[in-house]
Amino acid sequence: VAINELTPTPTKSDRTRAAILRAAREQFGQHGYDRASIRAIAAQASVDPALVIRYFTNKESLFSAVVDIDLLVPDLTNVAPSTLGRRLTEHFLARWEGELSDGVLVVLLRSAATNPAAAERLRGVFVDQVIEGLRALGLSDDVERRATLVSSQLLGIALTRYILRLPGIADRPAAELVADVAPTIQRYLTGRLPAVRIR
Amino acid sequence: VAINELTPTPTKSDRTRAAILRAAREQFGQHGYDRASIRAIAAQASVDPALVIRYFTNKESLFSAVVDIDLLVPDLTNVAPSTLGRRLTEHFLARWEGELSDGVLVVLLRSAATNPAAAERLRGVFVDQVIEGLRALGLSDDVERRATLVSSQLLGIALTRYILRLPGIADRPAAELVADVAPTIQRYLTGRLPAVRIR
Repeated sequence: VAINELTPTPTKSDRTRAAILRAAREQFGQHGYDRASIRAIAAQASVDPALVIRYFTNKESLFSAVVDIDLLVPDLTNVAPSTLGRRLTEHFLARWEGELSDGVLVVLLRSAATNPAAAERLRGVFVDQVIEGLRALGLSDDVERRATLVSSQLLGIALTRYILRLPGIADRPAAELVADVAPTIQRYLTGRLPAVRIR
Repeated sequence: VAINELTPTPTKSDRTRAAILRAAREQFGQHGYDRASIRAIAAQASVDPALVIRYFTNKESLFSAVVDIDLLVPDLTNVAPSTLGRRLTEHFLARWEGELSDGVLVVLLRSAATNPAAAERLRGVFVDQVIEGLRALGLSDDVERRATLVSSQLLGIALTRYILRLPGIADRPAAELVADVAPTIQRYLTGRLPAVRIR
């Protein structure tokens, strides 16, 4: 059938892979990285643990696969330059609060606070994405500096809202936070930054 | 002697207390909150563990005493309003990087990421201080909102610079970071914030 050539039916192996990822997402979200086990993930996905290893090699790769599913940074190429800060902030909060997040991002941030490998992973899934996003927009000056400033504010929001649960941040509607924080992100992305001595 | 009436000689008990705090600061910084022990702190201070308990009741109170020694928020009462953002950001970074910090703040933030009691403590030593600082300046509108926005940016800097050690944040001189971030803090402290619907 013509339509099947365009959108092929998922194979059995696609379905198995998806079931493992769903189970992993739930187990990591519920028990944290250290206490989640390949055995429990396999049991929840109703597959043999050996199959989990065949698909994902080890727990660390499986975790990366779970976190990479949904990008933290949206495609910014068709966004008006003056609304980049708002768009990025909205997307960031939506990703942590959307039904897809399932606490996995909180697990990632928590793990990153105590585990250098997780910190490295968080850098990969977030900072590098912001850098790529800026480059895709044709921005090239101070790209790393801007991306890390953006990260400091957005990850600071994640820390205070989802981990520390500070009253005044944790209990405000996302739209209000976006309004307060978007001008900061906009300045970091496209504003004029102070001159820095060449080192 | 007259001078002794004004600046009394430290008593033996003051000295013991200071020795315990010094040892605790070092043990917490080196081993983290969970793995630091009253026994090891007492040994390093050359006192009996029972004496540590008599002075500080338990490990949690001792930890609070260590962290409370140096306030994270400076006295802002004589600071020109237009330089509040810079002053607060400078002080914050200096506290984490100064010789007095000894890694205790990093331990506090790390513990707060995984432990609700530590998160509560961080709120006490930081957010409440910013709120008090704003009130001392006679500012009264949106004080909690402003203080938590400041916290989200400054704790985000601490997270990305000292914990995640993101290149582009961790390896820049503090003065450069202050220049980039101070306008954000200034806006959160004294700028016009978006109107919020009354709920």
